[in-house]
Amino acid sequence: MNNVFAAYIAGFLDADGSIYVQLKKNATYKYDFQIYVQVVFYQSSKHKIFLMKLCEEIGHGYVRERKDGICEYIIGDYKGMMHIICMVQKYLKLKKQQSILLQDILSQKQEINSAEDFVKLACMIDRFRELNYSKKRINTADTVKKHLIEKGLLTP
Amino acid sequence: MNNVFAAYIAGFLDADGSIYVQLKKNATYKYDFQIYVQVVFYQSSKHKIFLMKLCEEIGHGYVRERKDGICEYIIGDYKGMMHIICMVQKYLKLKKQQSILLQDILSQKQEINSAEDFVKLACMIDRFRELNYSKKRINTADTVKKHLIEKGLLTP
Repeated sequence: MNNVFAAYIAGFLDADGSIYVQLKKNATYKYDFQIYVQVVFYQSSKHKIFLMKLCEEIGHGYVRERKDGICEYIIGDYKGMMHIICMVQKYLKLKKQQSILLQDILSQKQEINSAEDFVKLACMIDRFRELNYSKKRINTADTVKKHLIEKGLLTP
Repeated sequence: MNNVFAAYIAGFLDADGSIYVQLKKNATYKYDFQIYVQVVFYQSSKHKIFLMKLCEEIGHGYVRERKDGICEYIIGDYKGMMHIICMVQKYLKLKKQQSILLQDILSQKQEINSAEDFVKLACMIDRFRELNYSKKRINTADTVKKHLIEKGLLTP
């Protein structure tokens, strides 16, 4: 994948994309929280074919059409996210910090061996909130910590 | 300006920018219509500084903050639009046709010597409507033609 294509994708992601990391309550996961990570490109559904071509060219992810006329090209698997982030990182201007933090989170996610490790990871995810100016996030590292203490998986 | 920067700007413009050509009724203009042309980049106002840097780097246009939390980087002068279009055109994927048509319109605009020329230009602007899927446009080549005939500036 050449530099010029990577720079184009970086511009696209900066303008109308999202690097998304969230903690979701999910009892089927070991620590009752799912780490929900995605790189998403948005466009009007009239540009669905364009997003599908982009998806084919990048070789990861999938395209889904929402009900509100917006189409999303979503990369949510580890390999795909690492690929896209490595490719565009040096060209990003608005989301460079998020992309660095995403890389760290993805690496850290592979190394979780204890509830303590999981809380550390949740703290890294909290930093995303600040970078993305997100006020909507419900589950923070603090929520996770309290929950794991209650369940006896973590010592206070 | 290097290729990688141009490709980044192309990605940004494709994702969250606009190439805008419109006919506006304006009695102070020779043919009673103003040809309103702009290249615009949009972002949340929290990224105003980023847009101002972009503006400085590109060397044309200005940044304005709207009341709805959106910031616009606007290039509306002939030289600036020609510069940005020449720079990004070969990297555009979604707005390439619009950029070619904009170049044609800008060149044509310099060569208007009669009401007939003006109607021809209005026809080119109509094509933008189709490329931009715009349904809101009020003034078309037909509106212009009828108006110029009524005023006796054009023979039916």
